[in-house]
Amino acid sequence: MTALPRTTALDVVLSYHRAWTSGDMDRAMTRVAEDIVCRAPGQDLVGKDAYRAFLAGFAPLLTGLTDVAGVADGDDHVLLFYYPHTSTTSTALAAERFTVQDGAIVENLLVFDRLSFAPPGAP
Amino acid sequence: MTALPRTTALDVVLSYHRAWTSGDMDRAMTRVAEDIVCRAPGQDLVGKDAYRAFLAGFAPLLTGLTDVAGVADGDDHVLLFYYPHTSTTSTALAAERFTVQDGAIVENLLVFDRLSFAPPGAP
Repeated sequence: MTALPRTTALDVVLSYHRAWTSGDMDRAMTRVAEDIVCRAPGQDLVGKDAYRAFLAGFAPLLTGLTDVAGVADGDDHVLLFYYPHTSTTSTALAAERFTVQDGAIVENLLVFDRLSFAPPGAP
Repeated sequence: MTALPRTTALDVVLSYHRAWTSGDMDRAMTRVAEDIVCRAPGQDLVGKDAYRAFLAGFAPLLTGLTDVAGVADGDDHVLLFYYPHTSTTSTALAAERFTVQDGAIVENLLVFDRLSFAPPGAP
């Protein structure tokens, strides 16, 4: 053992994930590239400001979290599955496929079922 | 090299995935356990018959496929991300987290955005 391994894509993503799901948006954003592209259900978010605004709209609704899987796919990609808990549901899965370059997240392919997170009784 | 490796969970899932997405439901179901549980958006499917009926409702709508990721998570789990193409969309992500036991899929945590797959103009 001569040196610590470099920060992996999985390290970057898990750090990001832990930060935003604990409400620390500033720390989460240190792991996100300025030119991030996020493909979310029904909309694409381009750039860090748009991405932060999107995430900041959801984060306050989070009441808990059940992590299911977090796995590297080669050197540059990471796959996450988890159950975000909100007042509406704790059984609606979310999945993300991240691309990491130079230690920052440059792409996030995000999937969740919007209907499952709608408030009860919403049309 | 003395022997071929045993069939892995990834082999099982990719065989299943290729089969149903090419319309071969019979072959796909050879990879599915009788007591499969599938957690899908808005509903849980318990047992192979219910699962087959669910999948058979969607498979005929499939016009193509873009695979994004397929990765083993340990010996028993596999994560898939892909874009199913339908007449409505080819940019709505689907993700699945499979559990494989004794060569068959026993659990599928499935996420997609139901609204993205709704027919255009649907309420």
